[in-house]
Amino acid sequence: MMANEDPCLSVGSAKRASVLEKGACVSSKFAASHNETSQTKSHPLGPIAAHEIIQSAALIRSCWPDGEECRFKMLTLLEPQKAELLPYLTAERAGQVPEYNIDRRVFVVYSIRGTHNVHEAVVNLTTGKVESNAKLGPFMHPNTDAEEVLAVEKAALEHPDVRAELEKLKLPSGAVVVSDPWIYGSDGVNEGKFFDDRRLMHCFLYMRDPNNPSEPDGCHYSFPLPVVPVVDPATLELIRIDILPTGLDEKVRPLSPWKPVPANEYIPEAQEEMRGDVKPLRVVQPEGTSFTVENYSELGRLIRWQKWEFKVGYNQREGMVLYDVHYDDKPLFYRLSLSDMCIPYGDPRHPFHRKAAFDLGDVGAGVMANNLKLGCDCLGSIYYIDGLLADTHGRPVVMPNVICVHEQDAGILWKHVNYRTSRAVVVRNRELVLQTILTVSNYEYILAWIFNTAGDITYEAKATGILSTQPVDLELTKTPHPFGTVVHPGVLGGYHQHFFSLRVDPMVAGPGNAIVYDEAVALPRDPILNPHGVGYTTHRTEIETSGGYDLDPGKSRTFKIINPSVRNSVNGAAVGYKLMVPPMQPILADADSFHFKRAEFADHSIYVTRYAEGELYAGGRYTNQSRGGEGVRSWANRKDSLAGGDPVVWIQFGINHIPRVEDFPVMPVETLRVMLRPVNFFDRNPAIDVPSSRQEINCSVAVDGSGTSLESAVRGMSLGGDGEERGLTTAAGASRDSPCVCP
Amino acid sequence: MMANEDPCLSVGSAKRASVLEKGACVSSKFAASHNETSQTKSHPLGPIAAHEIIQSAALIRSCWPDGEECRFKMLTLLEPQKAELLPYLTAERAGQVPEYNIDRRVFVVYSIRGTHNVHEAVVNLTTGKVESNAKLGPFMHPNTDAEEVLAVEKAALEHPDVRAELEKLKLPSGAVVVSDPWIYGSDGVNEGKFFDDRRLMHCFLYMRDPNNPSEPDGCHYSFPLPVVPVVDPATLELIRIDILPTGLDEKVRPLSPWKPVPANEYIPEAQEEMRGDVKPLRVVQPEGTSFTVENYSELGRLIRWQKWEFKVGYNQREGMVLYDVHYDDKPLFYRLSLSDMCIPYGDPRHPFHRKAAFDLGDVGAGVMANNLKLGCDCLGSIYYIDGLLADTHGRPVVMPNVICVHEQDAGILWKHVNYRTSRAVVVRNRELVLQTILTVSNYEYILAWIFNTAGDITYEAKATGILSTQPVDLELTKTPHPFGTVVHPGVLGGYHQHFFSLRVDPMVAGPGNAIVYDEAVALPRDPILNPHGVGYTTHRTEIETSGGYDLDPGKSRTFKIINPSVRNSVNGAAVGYKLMVPPMQPILADADSFHFKRAEFADHSIYVTRYAEGELYAGGRYTNQSRGGEGVRSWANRKDSLAGGDPVVWIQFGINHIPRVEDFPVMPVETLRVMLRPVNFFDRNPAIDVPSSRQEINCSVAVDGSGTSLESAVRGMSLGGDGEERGLTTAAGASRDSPCVCP
Repeated sequence: MMANEDPCLSVGSAKRASVLEKGACVSSKFAASHNETSQTKSHPLGPIAAHEIIQSAALIRSCWPDGEECRFKMLTLLEPQKAELLPYLTAERAGQVPEYNIDRRVFVVYSIRGTHNVHEAVVNLTTGKVESNAKLGPFMHPNTDAEEVLAVEKAALEHPDVRAELEKLKLPSGAVVVSDPWIYGSDGVNEGKFFDDRRLMHCFLYMRDPNNPSEPDGCHYSFPLPVVPVVDPATLELIRIDILPTGLDEKVRPLSPWKPVPANEYIPEAQEEMRGDVKPLRVVQPEGTSFTVENYSELGRLIRWQKWEFKVGYNQREGMVLYDVHYDDKPLFYRLSLSDMCIPYGDPRHPFHRKAAFDLGDVGAGVMANNLKLGCDCLGSIYYIDGLLADTHGRPVVMPNVICVHEQDAGILWKHVNYRTSRAVVVRNRELVLQTILTVSNYEYILAWIFNTAGDITYEAKATGILSTQPVDLELTKTPHPFGTVVHPGVLGGYHQHFFSLRVDPMVAGPGNAIVYDEAVALPRDPILNPHGVGYTTHRTEIETSGGYDLDPGKSRTFKIINPSVRNSVNGAAVGYKLMVPPMQPILADADSFHFKRAEFADHSIYVTRYAEGELYAGGRYTNQSRGGEGVRSWANRKDSLAGGDPVVWIQFGINHIPRVEDFPVMPVETLRVMLRPVNFFDRNPAIDVPSSRQEINCSVAVDGSGTSLESAVRGMSLGGDGEERGLTTAAGASRDSPCVCP
Repeated sequence: MMANEDPCLSVGSAKRASVLEKGACVSSKFAASHNETSQTKSHPLGPIAAHEIIQSAALIRSCWPDGEECRFKMLTLLEPQKAELLPYLTAERAGQVPEYNIDRRVFVVYSIRGTHNVHEAVVNLTTGKVESNAKLGPFMHPNTDAEEVLAVEKAALEHPDVRAELEKLKLPSGAVVVSDPWIYGSDGVNEGKFFDDRRLMHCFLYMRDPNNPSEPDGCHYSFPLPVVPVVDPATLELIRIDILPTGLDEKVRPLSPWKPVPANEYIPEAQEEMRGDVKPLRVVQPEGTSFTVENYSELGRLIRWQKWEFKVGYNQREGMVLYDVHYDDKPLFYRLSLSDMCIPYGDPRHPFHRKAAFDLGDVGAGVMANNLKLGCDCLGSIYYIDGLLADTHGRPVVMPNVICVHEQDAGILWKHVNYRTSRAVVVRNRELVLQTILTVSNYEYILAWIFNTAGDITYEAKATGILSTQPVDLELTKTPHPFGTVVHPGVLGGYHQHFFSLRVDPMVAGPGNAIVYDEAVALPRDPILNPHGVGYTTHRTEIETSGGYDLDPGKSRTFKIINPSVRNSVNGAAVGYKLMVPPMQPILADADSFHFKRAEFADHSIYVTRYAEGELYAGGRYTNQSRGGEGVRSWANRKDSLAGGDPVVWIQFGINHIPRVEDFPVMPVETLRVMLRPVNFFDRNPAIDVPSSRQEINCSVAVDGSGTSLESAVRGMSLGGDGEERGLTTAAGASRDSPCVCP
């Protein structure tokens, strides 16, 4: 279908949506029905509600003649512009009920079912109008969805040509073949020709354990097969079948009969023996939690904990989003979110060279979030937040328990002992955790925002789940492989990089922030000032234009978000927050490669851009088969002046995953942490007023060597008798039965 | 006293101890009394016992005429040579009772009280002989001790010259002056002349809050004074008084009257308001702990937990030491310890240029360990280990609760959800923690070895406590300072670096280990193999000679300890453990400086040496006023071949501490972690047999927005009603009242 056949398409750019003349596609009914509820429920940052999904879908459908069926790919809140939202939030904090003058908008991406005819639209629920509705131009493809994935799996496995190829493997009778459809990373081949621009998926095939094929949770990744059907997810046509190279080079050999290998399962009932000696460990909060949660909208949650206050939203693309983050009524962050992810693989051989997943843009963190279970995914007293998304039919779908909120003890936060009096003052590090867990086909990401009582915010990413495996010739099992690690006989875990991009939209001590980095530099020898060559000082560099920047641990280079117009009351320094970022190896794909072009954030640990509306996703809005040119690197390359005082910081971190045998059949977490920490923001340790750690409160238990409880008063017999009896003196402050005297 | 006046001094090197002709200084009585107990109690790795301290001190005293009083500086187990200990440990593991054929030796450093006449001796308790006893040569000084520190404080504060200087400050009436004696870092000035080689301490003076001078736990670091007495700790003579520069340059102004500044206290009763909303959070282990503890000697502890088995020793210098670490009966590490620490300051001005503490060598981790309190320093079910040390009179002193042993939950260890069945398998990360906390005058270090169920060992160092402050002119409070951060009016927190050196003596899969590092490298473009420029592979470098090596995150450089003679049963790779080390800024003091020469480990993240007896401390045995040439850099510079297969790895990590106002009056922890992680050591995920996380065991609680408990079956009303009622569909596997179905 051509653009001009589109009843709702406005003239103008076909590449980006453009505004319709007012009045088009109005539905006064919906506009009315909306108005009934808006006063009571809507907040500009409230995640899209059920009635809003229904209304938006209906408005889009009303743009099309009957018989054209819309398939909704993305139907989510379009957040208001900062210019109108900021005053609203300020008024709200001032306790005024802001006059509701911000139109409620929804961003919609949809296709005409069964076609590649994809549109991007903006629906204004306040006016009941479709404000824009345009067909996507070339090289812009929507995300996939669960319904599509399952359909592609089915189409691939049932196609006679695929069955014919599988026949050649002479799989054991009763073998169950499983398909993992993957996003088809663009490689730029046939650039511009329709075929190459067509949205495709390729399916990596596996087999369940042939000796236990009826187990639906068997680890099929232990049995990868060399046949890869390529399917058009819109039409479900089989495009072609790729055969995998299974040797040490790029050569593809004719398919030969499958050779038996043992299973390698992760489900407990399949293990020969489970450990029986892990005793229960429970987190108990007899007085409940220290946090409270309110609804700031039907689905938005306002959390208050230990001087922290922030709003939690949820959407299809990013999943959990934090807004309007304050500490002790001081503004810190306007918006915090995981902006993007990219996982490029290092195997250069066709078709592995197309493995480069952008899990947020290609699928969506909100869609992939787990339904977290009490006592499994989180320990202690848990508050769960549900998500609400639209399905492909434009119907609301509840996503229960996508975020768990709970407190944890993280050891000691600060301590000092005066050696003259032996008095200890100990304060423990209580943390508030907001955790969400994504399942991306084979893989899992455990993502959490963690707050503490000292003004620190930590973003923690844990990588777990199962490697995306590929077959390797059985006889090569003990031969080093150039592109991966053999993790099981005939099974290769390919090398790959993980890149995360955290978007930090700051308002540290209010608007007008600047980004700087400080370094520690040795002083030159000087007979007067530095005669012994031990002196060093710090040097500050202000980032004046948008761009990509690197860490330099050798210089203690530390990036900071500062507010030059707000000074620390003690030392007069500009108040700020520093970014503590683990160094990463930048993307190894070369600068001319499509992996590099598409992963616009994977080459620098820090990107700084000037705030611009709509620039939320480091890899661009449409990452699926993207060609680059739409993400943070492109925005940074504008070399915008940051003098305006509205910078956005993009923090990249990740791992180069060289698999270990220990990472199979399921990998122990690889943990990464980014910390946002106050620097001369407060006038002293902000946790100085946290009550000391006390046994009366903590009720810990002293145990003997068998691990069973002792009376704490008589503990310390570990010397085999009371020291004094044996003429031993005891160190100062060390009386063995002394009560807990921390406070 | 000259060397030749020493009744026990052998001929030969005066710089190092040498063996006496047999028979000298024998005491058959002690030899006999020892034999009674050795069979029953002694283990070659058993920390020195009370009777052994008493016996050793008596043997040393017997070398001296009556009237000469020995002051014991160090009296600790001299561990057997690896060559004789390794077979012993092997036999022990094989269940044989090893024939006791290893002599029990004690290493002693002592002085003749009131003099600088210091000796180093080795006592053989098995033979009852002093095997060596030699006077220390020039530039070698013993550690300080608590008794000495308190005496120096007193001497400094009571000296009329010091009082006269303090008079000039016109402190408020009733002011209480407090002294922090510091090790006097050598600066090489007057090198070789007696004065400069004399062991000295300088005392930084502070004042308690003049408005509350009777509070012994007031934070005197808020009131630093510019007068610094220099004292000889042996004779308690006042050597001179240094006056501190308090401006921006090196100039020292005449002392002027003290100007009032507010207090800044950390003790809770001094706070205006404490938080009242931190609800209790308890760790409860109803069935006790999963670990057991046995005595392998009178004071040595053998710990078994989750397939881990290791011995815990304790000594004056290193504090906690781990020996003979095995997992699932597989050998991993012969010995693990924190080997050294150095904290050089960056203020080049006299006398700050001498601030470079070596806390282990100058004082001793074992001596400075806190008496940990139940419910304060550790949460849950705790086993405490006591230490036993010698005082300066050669008497045993019990150090209660210097190590706490407990389990903790560290979130999720691994998880996978099969999106086709929605079945989740979740295993939590249970950890075993051995924690010890050091108080070094103003500062605290929280140090822990952490084990998990996946074969990982983490060493965690948390820095907290109080900055060693110095005075800065009150009118400069809001002026940026080149050498520190003003943290309180008139109070400067000087820039300083923290270096930790971890000594790892490996036996990964047995003897014959090698050290390598792997890097990930991009493949060149190649029309056949890498046509799209996305390929990369790994490259291994074997370390063949001892030396210092650096990290390179940009190449994902990863150091590994491997055993070339033991191959992974799955992929045939040499089994190994990788070192996950946070990058650090190397020491900023220049290569000609004494800070650099003395901190022999602070210039490289990794040092590798060939195992040599007695090489335990990265900064050398005598760090106090050391001149360098005795530590790991010097040993590494031997360029020993590592072909012998007995490497020792020294891991350096640290922070460049640029103080924040938030770090005062006591700093929130700065946390560093080093991880030792199996790489192709096991044949699969070693935690695959850990039971799944289950609500029946964990008994977590779902709460509502007020933080109070909900029935888990009716939770999830956060949408304001049951979804279905409102025509909402629910995502797969999301039924809201589903029980915990992880297993």
